[in-house]
Amino acid sequence: MLKYQHIADELENYIEEHKLQQGDKLPILQDLMIQFDVSKSTVTKALDLLEKTGVVFQVRGSGIFVRRHKRQGYISLSSNQGFKKNLEEFQITSEVITLDRRKPTKEAAVNLNISLDDDVYYVKRIRFIHGQTLCIEESYFNKSIVTYLNKEIITESIFNYITEGLGLSIGFADTYLHVDKLSAEEAEYLGLKKDDPKLEVESVFHLTNGQPFDFSKITYNYVQSQFFLQAVL
Amino acid sequence: MLKYQHIADELENYIEEHKLQQGDKLPILQDLMIQFDVSKSTVTKALDLLEKTGVVFQVRGSGIFVRRHKRQGYISLSSNQGFKKNLEEFQITSEVITLDRRKPTKEAAVNLNISLDDDVYYVKRIRFIHGQTLCIEESYFNKSIVTYLNKEIITESIFNYITEGLGLSIGFADTYLHVDKLSAEEAEYLGLKKDDPKLEVESVFHLTNGQPFDFSKITYNYVQSQFFLQAVL
Repeated sequence: MLKYQHIADELENYIEEHKLQQGDKLPILQDLMIQFDVSKSTVTKALDLLEKTGVVFQVRGSGIFVRRHKRQGYISLSSNQGFKKNLEEFQITSEVITLDRRKPTKEAAVNLNISLDDDVYYVKRIRFIHGQTLCIEESYFNKSIVTYLNKEIITESIFNYITEGLGLSIGFADTYLHVDKLSAEEAEYLGLKKDDPKLEVESVFHLTNGQPFDFSKITYNYVQSQFFLQAVL
Repeated sequence: MLKYQHIADELENYIEEHKLQQGDKLPILQDLMIQFDVSKSTVTKALDLLEKTGVVFQVRGSGIFVRRHKRQGYISLSSNQGFKKNLEEFQITSEVITLDRRKPTKEAAVNLNISLDDDVYYVKRIRFIHGQTLCIEESYFNKSIVTYLNKEIITESIFNYITEGLGLSIGFADTYLHVDKLSAEEAEYLGLKKDDPKLEVESVFHLTNGQPFDFSKITYNYVQSQFFLQAVL
């Protein structure tokens, strides 16, 4: 972790611990430099990162303010950092249904930018929130990038393993959402009825070098899930 | 519009015109400085803005690359810029159902951070995409910020009017999504059946100074809509 990322984490903890609310002003740059004993450029980079991830907003000539939405119980769609926090906040657990090595579907191959002869790891998991079924998740990992997976790894956070275990650097995601009706099979997994509403979220995750490494498809239980996202306009 | 924002627009046009695809490399910094006849810091700021809005990604030591998803027909949830583009791309039109000045609902007051005695403009519109009903939109504008609206304005882009007509600077949005079943009234507007799926999107739009000025609630026709969003991880 780079120094400014560490300072960004510290600043976020500071906001949490002091229970700062939306619109509360942060200490000025000079004070933050003293408080964390770092250079101006490190503080500035940390603040830019926090602005990008929606934790603060900067008003020119006026200061840096806390950005915080008021609603509890919403799953963040904005960032991976958000998703890790989701897992902690909501006590989300997983049950592995399938883990195998196979050839990709055509859809997965297109999204991963690989050929139909290439290998993928296929992972199907059910996720639970507070003991209720939250979603069905199917993921296709490009095996030439994510070279190894086992059941223990995929029961925990796969993304932690990819960054820390494999030393890869995760860059960005393209996410597609649509609403539809549940199939009979999906309904059974989720404990709902056929034709009940569902949110389907497809994501293509890329490394920082732009290579897609994970295509995932998540079907959410509409009763258990509500979502939050932030945009800078 | 600041100079770097103008350069960012030019760069985006360049990507469009040259039909650059995801992963295509942009000219190096020095060439962009010459091409647009601007300083290094202006080009850098323009590229940072384009990275924030998901148009490019930067790989340290390697260059700047085009970020572009492959799917057509998805409405962007990521940014307002996206939404203006959506309007052009999809030929979205509006029909005004209601425009009046009133006191806010409790929900609107909380989200706009105003009291129940303050005035809001209430706007209800139906939006059409390629002639089909796309969504029902209800918005509450804080009247002390958005001081005037009329029917002509709200038939066009309200946000264009707010920035250009009123000279306000739009900053960021917090958006909440959930999936549910349509009420009988909603179903009638959308040409669907009661209990069919719906996506409900609530947004709180803020000025750059952090003040919320618009609370809006959109109910989407699930058959006509699919959504796209980008995240930097």
